Amino acid sequence: MSAITLQQARDIIAASLAEGAKRGLKPLGILVLDAGGHLIAYERQDGASIGRFAVAMGKASGALQIGVSSRKIGEMAAERPTFVSSLAPLLPHGAVPAAGGVIVVDDKGSVLGAVGISGDTSDNDEICAIAGIAAAGLLVQS
Amino acid sequence: MSAITLQQARDIIAASLAEGAKRGLKPLGILVLDAGGHLIAYERQDGASIGRFAVAMGKASGALQIGVSSRKIGEMAAERPTFVSSLAPLLPHGAVPAAGGVIVVDDKGSVLGAVGISGDTSDNDEICAIAGIAAAGLLVQS
Amino acid sequence: MSAITLQQARDIIAASLAEGAKRGLKPLGILVLDAGGHLIAYERQDGASIGRFAVAMGKASGALQIGVSSRKIGEMAAERPTFVSSLAPLLPHGAVPAAGGVIVVDDKGSVLGAVGISGDTSDNDEICAIAGIAAAGLLVQS
Amino acid sequence: MSAITLQQARDIIAASLAEGAKRGLKPLGILVLDAGGHLIAYERQDGASIGRFAVAMGKASGALQIGVSSRKIGEMAAERPTFVSSLAPLLPHGAVPAAGGVIVVDDKGSVLGAVGISGDTSDNDEICAIAGIAAAGLLVQS
Repeated sequence: MSAITLQQARDIIAASLAEGAKRGLKPLGILVLDAGGHLIAYERQDGASIGRFAVAMGKASGALQIGVSSRKIGEMAAERPTFVSSLAPLLPHGAVPAAGGVIVVDDKGSVLGAVGISGDTSDNDEICAIAGIAAAGLLVQS
Repeated sequence: MSAITLQQARDIIAASLAEGAKRGLKPLGILVLDAGGHLIAYERQDGASIGRFAVAMGKASGALQIGVSSRKIGEMAAERPTFVSSLAPLLPHGAVPAAGGVIVVDDKGSVLGAVGISGDTSDNDEICAIAGIAAAGLLVQS
Repeated sequence: MSAITLQQARDIIAASLAEGAKRGLKPLGILVLDAGGHLIAYERQDGASIGRFAVAMGKASGALQIGVSSRKIGEMAAERPTFVSSLAPLLPHGAVPAAGGVIVVDDKGSVLGAVGISGDTSDNDEICAIAGIAAAGLLVQS
Repeated sequence: MSAITLQQARDIIAASLAEGAKRGLKPLGILVLDAGGHLIAYERQDGASIGRFAVAMGKASGALQIGVSSRKIGEMAAERPTFVSSLAPLLPHGAVPAAGGVIVVDDKGSVLGAVGISGDTSDNDEICAIAGIAAAGLLVQS
């Protein structure tokens, strides 16, 4: 496997939304990117604010650009705030330092893309992303 | 009715893709925007080039910004090329002067959002957008 | 094969430069992008002007975004100038409508990346790109 | 000597990569800029994340713009964070305040260009840059 298909992206989004519904989360914006950071699919639930796309994109695209999850970028930002702040304007969609941007890999660890979610707490956003990736039969970068 | 729901956006995309499949078109990128020009949903078919999102966005967002379809913006561009060229850098996602960006209205003519498609010829992109809007029980701005 | 390796990118650049030397061309800037439009390798020959990178990037990245060679984008621009002009500001590195940006595919036609060259005439730039891709054992998108 | 040649840039990159391999570092992105901050050469190792170019560029270009290494910009940022943060958006590729962007000078101290590396820790990135510059027979700005 060398790319996330549209059908897999749909499966990720559907399972992420189902996880959010099960947990009673706020309305979410969910996107799936290919390995180059380009959008395959996006859905924004009714009632989610209009900026969810930008935030989810900043999580997932930033994760792909730096090569670690947006949770780890958040940990980097806690240790080296000026370094991480300096990166955002250099990257096409910034790098949001908060959980919810998760890199998808194949069974050899090669990057296939990323999932970005925004809408509830960062921790909950990430839980839904991981649930979505697993439901689609794909792997999260460790 | 005052907004396109996520379910309606899904219906539009599914019906647009079905129309493209029926006609044997190239892989498409299809998006649905709300009345503020913000993304509700997007799908890119396997094999579509990575710039489909930007082009579809430039059609649909430009249509909403100017208040007419991207086909009409194309006609304006033929008559007044420097005027239309001057608009693009002022608008958040430009204004692509080619068919495929279609404004969605309610039965009173109020704007609900827009559909943008890129991937095949502009004419075919627009045919799919109109088919998708009709299938979702919504109306195209006349 | 699902990606252009750094070694293949070096082979492309070396063979493109050799073709330029054989033909006595002006100093060239040559880059190789992955399928997502991200830089793998670049070399600028001594004496080439400082803008060669931007022009080569605009050719190769634009080709990947639109899904056709920059030569074909040039042909599109001749037929539909306002349409093609409208795309450049929407794409991360524009879309230069002149030969010299060539898409690289695998034997199934899947996009692996692109080569962009700037420095001599557009036709000569493209000849070198095609020679480089062939020398690396890769294929040009037909 | 008044400029870094392409051959010297290749030598810098090859020696920097050799240093990284010797130390078992993560995959690197390495670039060499001329005195005007314009790219001479770049290589990204297989497996390096797609944002390595932007980060390496932000280190090397920022160093040239401010006239000190990106390590010193990092020290400035620790003392005067809002000052350094204010510079990034004013500069063409920002100014990343972390080691790995090193200015190259001739034997009279005149600036010839810069090397930028991203991929491993900032300290390791800088070690590889310095090793590469030395191997090419050039000098690091003191």
